[in-house]
Amino acid sequence: MKPSSNINPHVSVDCVIFGFDENKLKVLLIEQKHPGKEVKRRFALPGDLVYEDEGLDQAAGRVLEELTCLKGLFLRQFYAFGDPHRASSEKDRDWLETYRTKPDARVISIAYYSLVKMEEYQPGAGSFAASSSWYDINEIPELAFDHNLILEKALACLREEISYDRIGSDLLPKKFTLSQLQRLYEAILDRPLDKRNFRKAVKKMDHIRPLDERQTGVSHKPAQLFRFVQNKKRI
Amino acid sequence: MKPSSNINPHVSVDCVIFGFDENKLKVLLIEQKHPGKEVKRRFALPGDLVYEDEGLDQAAGRVLEELTCLKGLFLRQFYAFGDPHRASSEKDRDWLETYRTKPDARVISIAYYSLVKMEEYQPGAGSFAASSSWYDINEIPELAFDHNLILEKALACLREEISYDRIGSDLLPKKFTLSQLQRLYEAILDRPLDKRNFRKAVKKMDHIRPLDERQTGVSHKPAQLFRFVQNKKRI
Repeated sequence: MKPSSNINPHVSVDCVIFGFDENKLKVLLIEQKHPGKEVKRRFALPGDLVYEDEGLDQAAGRVLEELTCLKGLFLRQFYAFGDPHRASSEKDRDWLETYRTKPDARVISIAYYSLVKMEEYQPGAGSFAASSSWYDINEIPELAFDHNLILEKALACLREEISYDRIGSDLLPKKFTLSQLQRLYEAILDRPLDKRNFRKAVKKMDHIRPLDERQTGVSHKPAQLFRFVQNKKRI
Repeated sequence: MKPSSNINPHVSVDCVIFGFDENKLKVLLIEQKHPGKEVKRRFALPGDLVYEDEGLDQAAGRVLEELTCLKGLFLRQFYAFGDPHRASSEKDRDWLETYRTKPDARVISIAYYSLVKMEEYQPGAGSFAASSSWYDINEIPELAFDHNLILEKALACLREEISYDRIGSDLLPKKFTLSQLQRLYEAILDRPLDKRNFRKAVKKMDHIRPLDERQTGVSHKPAQLFRFVQNKKRI
């Protein structure tokens, strides 16, 4: 179980993978294998130490695949977590002693995030992950190390992204209704939005264009369809 | 010259301090003290290894102050640089052997940036910096390690910030003319902007508000004054 000598014991990567399922925002967590003595279940973001000879982006992709079998995601580096005591809590002691050659080393973690359509990614489990699954962002258990903090910061980044209109286009169908768009915003912002105000705001969004088309095959009055366009630079 | 045992030899911080002088964008570089054998002058971003017991933000503030005597800046973490070979170039060898206890260690650097009014910060020099001064961003010499890359990435972040209207308010007087605002945008984007198009774009900016006031004490026709307002959330 102990890592090879090629491992850099001072630097890790952690991946916050958000999934959207047309209604809710979830996050991918692994359950860590028991280090023997412990009884409590341990949940964590997928993350591990980097190899000495790999770059950080490369490490993030590799670690995510090893632990959850997911690959090909666009991982965006968003923050480095370096509190000197981020891995010295009592709750993490047994795990560190089982899995790390230098359980006392200060580990700085470079965190990445991604937002995907949940249905397109079926996670598996490998390495020290016993399993991995999607969790509602409002039902997150206590996580290993400072992973609750990392998740919180990733959520804040995601919310900033959406407020600057920088996400969305691959999370909805090519042509979508305003209700679908509102559900995406509500899931990410984690609060209900007033329908009328939302529609007013959308009218001012340069990257959302109304189409001369309506839904088909619905029993209710078919809603107008919209699409995303590339944001033009204003200046 | 060698660092104390309290130093973490694997993680450093680097600071990209941009200065605006109402016309040009500059960046703060230090000239590193000669390691003896070398003759070539060595320029670098202010940066150094972190202490084992300090957080990353704290390290960035301390290192900046030690090398350039500047303090109290708002430093924003923007990226972690972790190419396995970022400090293994021949050009950096002598310096590493003189100043580092583990010249071969892989060092991951957490980079910070700040944008300040240049006139408010007079840099000095300390530690392994022989001097520090402001350099025009178009006249940057070859820098130590991967510092040219770090600077480039910081510039890209800064340009993204301004395109989302997130900077500016403390770089200009409280009340300013559109020419002053245009010079700020031109300096950061590093390209001339068309005056008419710029004025049209400003009209759409929620965070710039025209005032019922004009310049006073100028020999030419006094220009209208503007001020910054807090960006309101759209949704």
